[in-house]
Amino acid sequence: MRYGHELTTRTFAVIGPEVQDRKMRLAGNNLACTSCHQNDATKPYAMPWVGVAATFPQYRAREDAISSVEERVNGCMERSMNGRPLPLDSREMKAFASYIHYVSRGLPIGAKLEGAGAKPIKAPNRRADLAAGEAVYAKNCVACHGIDGQGQRRGKVGDAEGYAFPPLWGKDTFNNGAGMNRMLTAAAFIRHNMPQGTTHQTPVLSDDEAFDVAGYVLSKPRPIKAGLDNDFPARWNKPVDAAFPPYVDGASADQHRYGPYPPLQDLAKQRADALKTARETAAAR
Amino acid sequence: MRYGHELTTRTFAVIGPEVQDRKMRLAGNNLACTSCHQNDATKPYAMPWVGVAATFPQYRAREDAISSVEERVNGCMERSMNGRPLPLDSREMKAFASYIHYVSRGLPIGAKLEGAGAKPIKAPNRRADLAAGEAVYAKNCVACHGIDGQGQRRGKVGDAEGYAFPPLWGKDTFNNGAGMNRMLTAAAFIRHNMPQGTTHQTPVLSDDEAFDVAGYVLSKPRPIKAGLDNDFPARWNKPVDAAFPPYVDGASADQHRYGPYPPLQDLAKQRADALKTARETAAAR
Repeated sequence: MRYGHELTTRTFAVIGPEVQDRKMRLAGNNLACTSCHQNDATKPYAMPWVGVAATFPQYRAREDAISSVEERVNGCMERSMNGRPLPLDSREMKAFASYIHYVSRGLPIGAKLEGAGAKPIKAPNRRADLAAGEAVYAKNCVACHGIDGQGQRRGKVGDAEGYAFPPLWGKDTFNNGAGMNRMLTAAAFIRHNMPQGTTHQTPVLSDDEAFDVAGYVLSKPRPIKAGLDNDFPARWNKPVDAAFPPYVDGASADQHRYGPYPPLQDLAKQRADALKTARETAAAR
Repeated sequence: MRYGHELTTRTFAVIGPEVQDRKMRLAGNNLACTSCHQNDATKPYAMPWVGVAATFPQYRAREDAISSVEERVNGCMERSMNGRPLPLDSREMKAFASYIHYVSRGLPIGAKLEGAGAKPIKAPNRRADLAAGEAVYAKNCVACHGIDGQGQRRGKVGDAEGYAFPPLWGKDTFNNGAGMNRMLTAAAFIRHNMPQGTTHQTPVLSDDEAFDVAGYVLSKPRPIKAGLDNDFPARWNKPVDAAFPPYVDGASADQHRYGPYPPLQDLAKQRADALKTARETAAAR
């Protein structure tokens, strides 16, 4: 559990790309889990791990399969951490699972918890305005993340000490397969957690501002994950803001990347309902 | 979850040694999980899986390591089922984990539950009396398990339909590394669950009878697991009734196999206390 806490809060120092032991360089960037999962992964609507142990194994659309909590950790390792999966029986994976178990203690198996995941915004029915997003960024984000989006190192390159404020684009951040690379997820996270100190009860940015600044940040270059066409293999339940091909609804790549999303959400709902009806009809025969 | 239930109750028919698909022959005997884990693995003090999802990952003395629930399933696969481990990411393993999660729903993460495991007996301070055990067996067990301990097949050899009543010794049952091969575990299970229909609230056998009949059953030949000296590698927390070498307390193999156990339990407690004191002294320096 203690090692899991260390891995969670000082990921860069234990399995980051700058650690001494080359075999331990499993993460591909110098982020920490807590770069997104704030307050040691316990903050409501910052994708907390509190209660997560009670929800696995669970069906995951990204794999179209039942996943263990360990496999979910590897989902982050390969995307948000732009790295390699941890062996399922490794000390590091057991440490992560033990920490997740620890912060979930007392919560009932199978429970749906208030504060889980990210709190959705009401997505504006328009494309993100990247210029407006740049202005939101300049006003609210630059102090910590920098005009170049590269955040602020604790020490210097190569010391495996990570960032006081993480980079948002460029080589040392989440790749394009990460959940945070999806507009609606990023906007939900930003609105209820950014700037630093914001909670879902004290949002600073409006839905529109969060949407636009998410568009601006995600318009910047970042690491590319190979093989993303293997994600969401069932296709029908691929999130509308998963901005990588294939796109199966006839909408443009640009609309999946920047919106407007409500028409895509309507399409996705129709598709899911049609599939459900077809399944029920088949079952009734 | 449904597949997990099938695997649990009809193990022999899905992954048993007589199934058509050779690749699926992962269990080495024709038992079901529910041969021991009664009532679909929900019966109190019959090592129920209810709540088990809330207790993993956990430290396991057998491995002297933190184990996932999947690894614990494989502990049974290699011992009680005398077979091979399931791949951690296999459909079968996910089904087991999903069923364990299902029967654990609503129970709080980290909870200690009444009815977990087996309810201990008060171990008599003597060696098991195998002749007395044989008499207990003849009176209480023969109707189902047979005078030869081979149980009763549902159908015939080779049909992968398993047993109405499982064999207790011989080639088609748990091996000598199984928890059920430990006298105190077997006696606890028998006293609170046997004959068929017995519960911990309505025991039929006395502690002495359960102890003796366990000794009789476990005195019979059964499959041998290779490499058991790798189990309980820390040694100090090896159960006193784990009847395979090495024995580190100077007591005889016969005493570990048949008792008397209270002197061994006293020795084990002294050893654990001494280790704890040494650790605390080292930490205080």
